[in-house]
Amino acid sequence: MFEKQVYVNRRLKLRKMIKSGLVLIPGNTESPMNYKSNTYRFRQDSNFLYFFGLDIPGLAGVIDIEDGKDCLYGNDFDIDDIIWMGPQPTLKELGEKVGILSTHPFKELQTTIARAIKQGRKIHILPPYRAESMILLEQLLGIHPSMINNYVSVELIKAVVNLRSVKEDVEIAEIEKACAAGYEMHVTAMKMAKPGVSEQDITGAIEGVAISKGYMPSFPIILSQNGETLHNHDHSQILTSGRLLLIDSGAEYSSHYASDFTRTIPVDGKFTERQKAIYNIVLAANNKAIEISKPGIPYLDVHKASAKVIVEGLSALGLMKGDADEAVANGAHALFFPHGLGHMMGLDVHDMEGLGEDYVGYDDEITRSDQFGTAYLRLGRRLQKGFVLTVEPGIYFIPALIEKWKSEKINESFINFDKVEEYIGFGGIRIEDDILITDNGCKIIGKRIPVTVEEIENIMKG
Amino acid sequence: MFEKQVYVNRRLKLRKMIKSGLVLIPGNTESPMNYKSNTYRFRQDSNFLYFFGLDIPGLAGVIDIEDGKDCLYGNDFDIDDIIWMGPQPTLKELGEKVGILSTHPFKELQTTIARAIKQGRKIHILPPYRAESMILLEQLLGIHPSMINNYVSVELIKAVVNLRSVKEDVEIAEIEKACAAGYEMHVTAMKMAKPGVSEQDITGAIEGVAISKGYMPSFPIILSQNGETLHNHDHSQILTSGRLLLIDSGAEYSSHYASDFTRTIPVDGKFTERQKAIYNIVLAANNKAIEISKPGIPYLDVHKASAKVIVEGLSALGLMKGDADEAVANGAHALFFPHGLGHMMGLDVHDMEGLGEDYVGYDDEITRSDQFGTAYLRLGRRLQKGFVLTVEPGIYFIPALIEKWKSEKINESFINFDKVEEYIGFGGIRIEDDILITDNGCKIIGKRIPVTVEEIENIMKG
Repeated sequence: MFEKQVYVNRRLKLRKMIKSGLVLIPGNTESPMNYKSNTYRFRQDSNFLYFFGLDIPGLAGVIDIEDGKDCLYGNDFDIDDIIWMGPQPTLKELGEKVGILSTHPFKELQTTIARAIKQGRKIHILPPYRAESMILLEQLLGIHPSMINNYVSVELIKAVVNLRSVKEDVEIAEIEKACAAGYEMHVTAMKMAKPGVSEQDITGAIEGVAISKGYMPSFPIILSQNGETLHNHDHSQILTSGRLLLIDSGAEYSSHYASDFTRTIPVDGKFTERQKAIYNIVLAANNKAIEISKPGIPYLDVHKASAKVIVEGLSALGLMKGDADEAVANGAHALFFPHGLGHMMGLDVHDMEGLGEDYVGYDDEITRSDQFGTAYLRLGRRLQKGFVLTVEPGIYFIPALIEKWKSEKINESFINFDKVEEYIGFGGIRIEDDILITDNGCKIIGKRIPVTVEEIENIMKG
Repeated sequence: MFEKQVYVNRRLKLRKMIKSGLVLIPGNTESPMNYKSNTYRFRQDSNFLYFFGLDIPGLAGVIDIEDGKDCLYGNDFDIDDIIWMGPQPTLKELGEKVGILSTHPFKELQTTIARAIKQGRKIHILPPYRAESMILLEQLLGIHPSMINNYVSVELIKAVVNLRSVKEDVEIAEIEKACAAGYEMHVTAMKMAKPGVSEQDITGAIEGVAISKGYMPSFPIILSQNGETLHNHDHSQILTSGRLLLIDSGAEYSSHYASDFTRTIPVDGKFTERQKAIYNIVLAANNKAIEISKPGIPYLDVHKASAKVIVEGLSALGLMKGDADEAVANGAHALFFPHGLGHMMGLDVHDMEGLGEDYVGYDDEITRSDQFGTAYLRLGRRLQKGFVLTVEPGIYFIPALIEKWKSEKINESFINFDKVEEYIGFGGIRIEDDILITDNGCKIIGKRIPVTVEEIENIMKG
């Protein structure tokens, strides 16, 4: 965790953005796997971490706008806990670490909230995403879990997005550490991959690296020869000569800042000519996005520029045709690149996704497209210095999608379907890096994971 | 998963044990980490797995006792899901895999349950342990999460415990695979451990092994030089010459059957004479328990026999004194061995703990002790052929507990406190194996992980 002043300052900034009322930010509790006491690795709520810093289950923070006080609610450990768990800090000591002098037993939270409601004061809450939080909020506010999303505070969401979007220097240092761990994960995978090794073996090894070098993977590892299946968490295959292996994974550091990288490598350690041709288009699209990302440019425009590189490349190979700008305007690229170019990254790998993607990635000026493909772009608004985001173009040959477009004649003026069908079975390629927006442009965070054909073939040679 | 007949037979057996009504067993849903779509590794509910076999989120099973029908509720994937997730089986196909012909959209579960309630029929439910299930049960039954534990069916709990306690051959084969993965975890740790290596590094590596060779660790890994802190999930230390490292970990296989082993090793690869003396007492206690475990003997008696070996050993070293049987009867061993000898193991590492420990480990004949130490014994009742359980005695030097007993003169006639205080800083030793109760005795499941002083020192030599 950071020095206490970091949290004090963040809460002070938040206070200035909220007119009145109480800001209530519950921390997370333990998540049971198969019975109550057998829990997953604890993951604190990111907003609680941001404003209250404490990485311990069972706490809640309250920021009282009018009386200027920040309060922490939680329970002290008893003597039995200390025998089983070793010496533990008191709630008072925990509060001091993050600049909070007013600490209270958890049950008093009910009284505090009930009093505020009685006084007609607004209770600002963020959208809950865990059922435990919904049950707590029902108990505190009397609002049924199915209705709670109608009572979240848009004022608070916007303020939090405003603060968390621009990363502080101390945060960037943590993201760099998460990126260093992510680097190790990917290089480990590159060194292990060869025909006959199982996807599951590599997945276990790189998840182990994420735990050893950080805290855990920042999201469930995608590692599959079926790279064209975008949300593929199956790792049951054995690596086979001639195929590509797509690995989308990153580390969450012990401070809970994330990294998120994708590399696509040839199982044989050497790309075929056909693979190399598609690979270099995706790499050019990735490099283009990094080249033009800077303060002021809408990320939607960067997405389109990257899509245009894909269209031009596929046209040169005879898979697409027609004017590239027109093809992108019509969403023809989305047959091959059916997702967004990237998203914010920070304490969450899709940063602040729990607050609502449109609040994070769009604004009054730039709203979400409803075109297939671009509609999945999580970040469209103008970039600012201090934003941290991913750049992750891809080209996939998705049999069900190709069949659907062909039979429905979607964008047929831009696509040579006969040629495209020759690529069924090719799989998919995605290349993802993490960037920080700087004064005049952007920089790749951390040492870039081997990314050119030569670099990848070299590292796989061993 | 097993062949469909396995699930059909289990449900048939359950039907014979429940008089009337509907048995409702919801499967688990995804568990969010830091926002809704970023989820932990999916863990199906063990009871759902046992009776309905399907390892997919968002399902529920209903066994109608009177009409003899088993029903499965869930939702089919739509075309968008298939584009993103690849081809998926239909609910009907899933049902067929486990011998269920009656499949329905999830929303019809509400109608089914409402109709049964209206008819005055009993809805049998098991205790929920996840907040998502509590919210579902509230929606189906109208019972608030805070009250739901008053409405669980003891008739159903007892029937499920009865069935799941005695392992079928197909289950034992899966537990053997989980044990084989657990073996790899421990041997990996033994080979890595030496002064200067971090606990976190080893933890990551063996968690990786659990994932590569199985599905995941069967519970959060305990790996610490502070072995005397029983529930220690801190791995922040660097291994230091002269200390012991306690590792309590096991694998959950892809079928979700568990293993659970503990080994305690010297960081230097060689035990000191003092460490060896305590270690061999714990090993003798473990061996004693394995020697006498057989059908018919109460595990409470095995626990006491194991505790007696500890008392005798510590008396020989001058840490305890007086009659060993009397010391055990008075719970004096619990200063050093303050937990139970073991627990059931199967689809849950503490098998069926979610159903209530006393239903699993005790019965009308043998009830839970209220004596400190023995009160923590999870399994006290008579063993039966087919039980799978852990044997895990230990000796710990817990500063806070020693201080408390000394100052309160607890069991002072059996303990030489001055001598005991010389061991503060020693840490703790636990040795845990998994056994299957056979016709006349028991057998250790899988190849025994190196356990004698010689075996451990040999493997650590490399």
